[in-house]
Amino acid sequence: MKPFIDRDFLLPGECAARLYHEAAAGEPVFDYHCHLKAEDIALNRRFSNLAVLWLGENRYGDHYKWRAMRANGIDEELVSGNADPYDRFMAWAATVPALMGNPLYHWTHLELQRYFDIYEHLNPASAPAIWKAANEKLEKEEGLSVCGILKKFRVYALGTTDDPADSLEWHRKLRGEGKTETMVLPSFRPDNVINIEKPGFPQYIARLGKAAGRSIGSFEDLLLVLKERVDFFDREGCCSSDHGLEYIPWPTGTETDGIIVSGKPDEAAWEDEAGRIFAAALAGKVPGAAESELWKSKILVCLAGLYAEKGWAMQLHLSAIRNVNSGAAGLLGPDTGYDAVHDYSVSAKLSGFLDYCNSRGALPKTILYSLNPKDFYPLASIMGCFQGNAALRGKALPGKMQLGSSWWFLDHIDGMEAQMRILANTGLLSRFIGMLTDSRSFLSYPRHEYFRRILCRILGAWMEEGEIPADYETVEAMVRDISFGNAKNYFLNKGGCSKI
Amino acid sequence: MKPFIDRDFLLPGECAARLYHEAAAGEPVFDYHCHLKAEDIALNRRFSNLAVLWLGENRYGDHYKWRAMRANGIDEELVSGNADPYDRFMAWAATVPALMGNPLYHWTHLELQRYFDIYEHLNPASAPAIWKAANEKLEKEEGLSVCGILKKFRVYALGTTDDPADSLEWHRKLRGEGKTETMVLPSFRPDNVINIEKPGFPQYIARLGKAAGRSIGSFEDLLLVLKERVDFFDREGCCSSDHGLEYIPWPTGTETDGIIVSGKPDEAAWEDEAGRIFAAALAGKVPGAAESELWKSKILVCLAGLYAEKGWAMQLHLSAIRNVNSGAAGLLGPDTGYDAVHDYSVSAKLSGFLDYCNSRGALPKTILYSLNPKDFYPLASIMGCFQGNAALRGKALPGKMQLGSSWWFLDHIDGMEAQMRILANTGLLSRFIGMLTDSRSFLSYPRHEYFRRILCRILGAWMEEGEIPADYETVEAMVRDISFGNAKNYFLNKGGCSKI
Amino acid sequence: MKPFIDRDFLLPGECAARLYHEAAAGEPVFDYHCHLKAEDIALNRRFSNLAVLWLGENRYGDHYKWRAMRANGIDEELVSGNADPYDRFMAWAATVPALMGNPLYHWTHLELQRYFDIYEHLNPASAPAIWKAANEKLEKEEGLSVCGILKKFRVYALGTTDDPADSLEWHRKLRGEGKTETMVLPSFRPDNVINIEKPGFPQYIARLGKAAGRSIGSFEDLLLVLKERVDFFDREGCCSSDHGLEYIPWPTGTETDGIIVSGKPDEAAWEDEAGRIFAAALAGKVPGAAESELWKSKILVCLAGLYAEKGWAMQLHLSAIRNVNSGAAGLLGPDTGYDAVHDYSVSAKLSGFLDYCNSRGALPKTILYSLNPKDFYPLASIMGCFQGNAALRGKALPGKMQLGSSWWFLDHIDGMEAQMRILANTGLLSRFIGMLTDSRSFLSYPRHEYFRRILCRILGAWMEEGEIPADYETVEAMVRDISFGNAKNYFLNKGGCSKI
Repeated sequence: MKPFIDRDFLLPGECAARLYHEAAAGEPVFDYHCHLKAEDIALNRRFSNLAVLWLGENRYGDHYKWRAMRANGIDEELVSGNADPYDRFMAWAATVPALMGNPLYHWTHLELQRYFDIYEHLNPASAPAIWKAANEKLEKEEGLSVCGILKKFRVYALGTTDDPADSLEWHRKLRGEGKTETMVLPSFRPDNVINIEKPGFPQYIARLGKAAGRSIGSFEDLLLVLKERVDFFDREGCCSSDHGLEYIPWPTGTETDGIIVSGKPDEAAWEDEAGRIFAAALAGKVPGAAESELWKSKILVCLAGLYAEKGWAMQLHLSAIRNVNSGAAGLLGPDTGYDAVHDYSVSAKLSGFLDYCNSRGALPKTILYSLNPKDFYPLASIMGCFQGNAALRGKALPGKMQLGSSWWFLDHIDGMEAQMRILANTGLLSRFIGMLTDSRSFLSYPRHEYFRRILCRILGAWMEEGEIPADYETVEAMVRDISFGNAKNYFLNKGGCSKI
Repeated sequence: MKPFIDRDFLLPGECAARLYHEAAAGEPVFDYHCHLKAEDIALNRRFSNLAVLWLGENRYGDHYKWRAMRANGIDEELVSGNADPYDRFMAWAATVPALMGNPLYHWTHLELQRYFDIYEHLNPASAPAIWKAANEKLEKEEGLSVCGILKKFRVYALGTTDDPADSLEWHRKLRGEGKTETMVLPSFRPDNVINIEKPGFPQYIARLGKAAGRSIGSFEDLLLVLKERVDFFDREGCCSSDHGLEYIPWPTGTETDGIIVSGKPDEAAWEDEAGRIFAAALAGKVPGAAESELWKSKILVCLAGLYAEKGWAMQLHLSAIRNVNSGAAGLLGPDTGYDAVHDYSVSAKLSGFLDYCNSRGALPKTILYSLNPKDFYPLASIMGCFQGNAALRGKALPGKMQLGSSWWFLDHIDGMEAQMRILANTGLLSRFIGMLTDSRSFLSYPRHEYFRRILCRILGAWMEEGEIPADYETVEAMVRDISFGNAKNYFLNKGGCSKI
Repeated sequence: MKPFIDRDFLLPGECAARLYHEAAAGEPVFDYHCHLKAEDIALNRRFSNLAVLWLGENRYGDHYKWRAMRANGIDEELVSGNADPYDRFMAWAATVPALMGNPLYHWTHLELQRYFDIYEHLNPASAPAIWKAANEKLEKEEGLSVCGILKKFRVYALGTTDDPADSLEWHRKLRGEGKTETMVLPSFRPDNVINIEKPGFPQYIARLGKAAGRSIGSFEDLLLVLKERVDFFDREGCCSSDHGLEYIPWPTGTETDGIIVSGKPDEAAWEDEAGRIFAAALAGKVPGAAESELWKSKILVCLAGLYAEKGWAMQLHLSAIRNVNSGAAGLLGPDTGYDAVHDYSVSAKLSGFLDYCNSRGALPKTILYSLNPKDFYPLASIMGCFQGNAALRGKALPGKMQLGSSWWFLDHIDGMEAQMRILANTGLLSRFIGMLTDSRSFLSYPRHEYFRRILCRILGAWMEEGEIPADYETVEAMVRDISFGNAKNYFLNKGGCSKI
């Protein structure tokens, strides 16, 4: 029996262990998509106690843990509320032993080990001493300030998530001051531009105009402002956009209204219609479902074109259904643990959208994530149709299209293994850009370690069983690439990727 | 090489074996959903031979085995027909060796071992002697009467499946007579109320009225009668309802007719429309698809409210497509082996329905089963949005929302393992209420043993590999809870769960 | 650590190894569905070099490898283009090490071993010597001519893929000349008859008429010609049809137009409508989506009836989405690597279609393939509803309905294992007709070996763990049946299967 989370955690054989310790462990971290705040880094924030760090405050915190506590019957006041931090910590500690089999169980103990040098198992009995010891370290140790953490985990770069209207002032400040060696890169997340049916859309558009120093009265104005914001983000180091989408907006079948049929839209009609829908929305008219989809498909195509020009990567996060419990989400706000896995069909719409962009020579590097593992085969095989440079001028970029790492409800051993195996079976695992935390917490860096151990477990088992040769040179290079090098090249090499 | 089905069957390491033998094996059985007949228990029925017991009679029997025999090319007369019992048994024995890899192969041999002390493999050569030996035991051994079986397998409680119009006379008789220590609990299965489009609906409503001693002429009458029947079932010990649904009825998208939009129905219009559809159906008019769905969503919401008041659990069985072979099902009747796995999308409708119930404070404890493993992630993540008590008054119930155990076509090692792993990865395995047989046969109790071995195999492997600590006290408690304790608390603690 | 692809490749225990070497390895090959050309066999073609053999020429070749090379950033000229063969081979060799984890990695090395006795790993360093050695063998060795290959791999029979308008002259020539002992059987693939919306449909119908020596002016004419072509193919040894379908055409729900409702069509209206759509199409009118589906469902039902009469198997390949990258596919043509996995719902349409055929007594032996593993449970459980002979006259055929082997994007260890496990769990693995290559290359025969090793790995693990008995006689017979015997019986026994 192996001890719990020891040196060879998740590494059952010699091959796996060697690959991890020799090749994976030493690589820096390129955390290309997360929800950390540049401000926290610029201010080199410290955290007062484990409750704030793990459970958050003011309704902002780790909704993974919140959901687990709710399933364990913990009162909401202790979950996301304003109860005493120690009581909240103890409620969490009471939930942890019930979480065996859940990634939170591993993450929690990896975090105790890697950040605090605490090797006990968290439970109600051990909790008081852990609370005391961890809080003391939080107060005193330099390595537990935000910049200390980035250094300790050798975070080469991290991609924040930013609204097009954002001033990016903290990013600029950071670059100016040199407080950290980590590259803190903004990412362009224009969900507010796309979600035309959401309340507050006209107000948001006004805010976006203000950020750009222009008034936006028409679709043309909007496109101009978006182009300027993309230029601005690009100058600030942005190399990636990010989109949260229930599904890819692409009118198909009977919903086409004669505008988009089999990927061949009537360009003029589409543009006119989008302009009309936008003008109406600015005037306060909420568009219907078909109108929304038409709008979203149009604006997404325009944005994709801007990304392609800049050599950015386009990240598409699909198949989440949001605010499922409308009462609780209404009370606590979005991103408080009331989202779930959606299950629409993806192939037809995604194919239509990508094909259209590609046919205009305006398909950027693209990363396709889905929250539903049933989508992995469709996504992996569809993206395979857009690799290479057939029918396009220019250089073929290795691994231009990426199947995004398992995400959110899939961010665990089984989910990550499924994603990597399907990618390997249908494409090139060796070109995979690997792990991102997608996290709001500075304690999440051990998830890269977790991912790398799982990667090495898969490769090690193949080697052990003679399914790949014991060619350590090649396989270790592959491990290093997936751990760090591929992501670095993919995101930072913007020149080489534009105009593909 | 391990011997076939020995003491450590499905328990590959020391940890798994210890967990099973020390913690799981000794627990009683709480078989909360099955199709056994209370009458058979009250009369302490005996079975004349293995053919009746395994293959049934008069077109009533184990359609799992029937399907297997058909796939093996056995003539229907020997499958479900009136052929000589010995011939039918021999036809089954000829099919068994062809079933390696199918759960029937395990179930058959577990049943021979546990009920009959027969350790041979069933095949045409061994069959005649097995027939003789088993039938002799069936005739003589007390432990092979129905009550003997319940005692032998320590069945603490079992939940039958009953129509709201049922008099529950056998349940009452059983409670009065004390023939068995097993609690025989009725379950409320109002499929006939819901399926308004089925032939015989008006006749059924008349029968239901008769059972309640009222005539049902309007939707109001129906709701009153249902309330009375729920009261009656509750007094008779019922703690659970059960629903067989192709999919969750919830008008979405263009089907809404303006009545239900994004989970915010026009209450008055919905009620009027349901009343109108019901009145028309009583008058013999079969409703169309959209009308049916509107009706079903309305009545399901009303029923959920009644269950919530009583502290019952609501069981929702989703994604079966029924009577796929209409010719054969027409000839042999329903439940004769002509059903299959459906594959609609579930997230939108299920979310809408649960959110609506929850927003009225009328979401009962709920168990979500699906016959399609693609639904496990959507179900597990959607149910997670309704755990806890945010935005609700009252106590939070641990594990209020449950992902039902793998069922029917998924009731095998791979299916059960998938369900438990997805539950563990996205929620709290430790709160899982575990196994039910869903069976028509008194020979099915070893399926609880089968389930527990699989559970211990998963946990044992995690412990062996250092993925959970070797903390036997905690893990054994978890095993006991999942084997028995959680189900007992979940179903019998009705007071603590109402008005959640 | 096991050496790479050694004698016991994929066979981790003694049981698996014994099953493979004693039972599987010695069986002949019945490759019932492939895309080899009868002409190449009749002419006993030889190949000039590894580039032609592996990467093809004139835009005809192995699109699996092409996709891999594109994902690796190889320029299209080297992928499918007219670059120098050696350069193309070197580009492939540079891609191979990046393919660890992909079945191409195994296939490539199995092919080097089994055809060329080359045991090195292909990579840029080893490539020049391998090129030289392999090309020399291609030139000199008799065993590397087409007929030599068929002999070496003991190919008992192979099923080509042929258009109904095909003259089958090369098949006839082959039978007359006795150049090879392999049965080269035509298969009937009427996609061109079904795809009424495709450009060139009227021209195709004219060509079909010409092949039959009749003019086709009406739907009646077409049915007559199809019947004659089926008769002709049957006389030429055909025992199987094949269909490539995005999904099963079956009007359901609101699309029914009142013609097909719940599997009970208005026969006269359906026939009239199909006739009308056909006449319009001949006159150049491209039908809309609903019309197309109505047509396709009708013609597919008629064809199924013809197959049933002949005792042919009907192969249905579902859930591919074609030419996703329309630009590249437009340039390079179909089947050049721009297809992907579709994800429609299958249960409702497939059930409706099979039930209708069955209710007319005209459901042939049927093999259901899907490119999407989410379909395996629906397919396996739906096909189970049509096994046996309930409600039908005549003999029940064991394994009449088949879940097709994992195919194309699923043709790898994980995909094949998933398909076999789901089949085993829901039906009879022992009746499975096993592997087909579906290949365009004479180098693909080791995929049968690959499949058999995976099969023996599954069964061996079950035996090792005591999940099936160590009854080698039974299990080895099962291995032999799945490797060869079942397919031989299934396809060649046409008499016994008709009029089921």
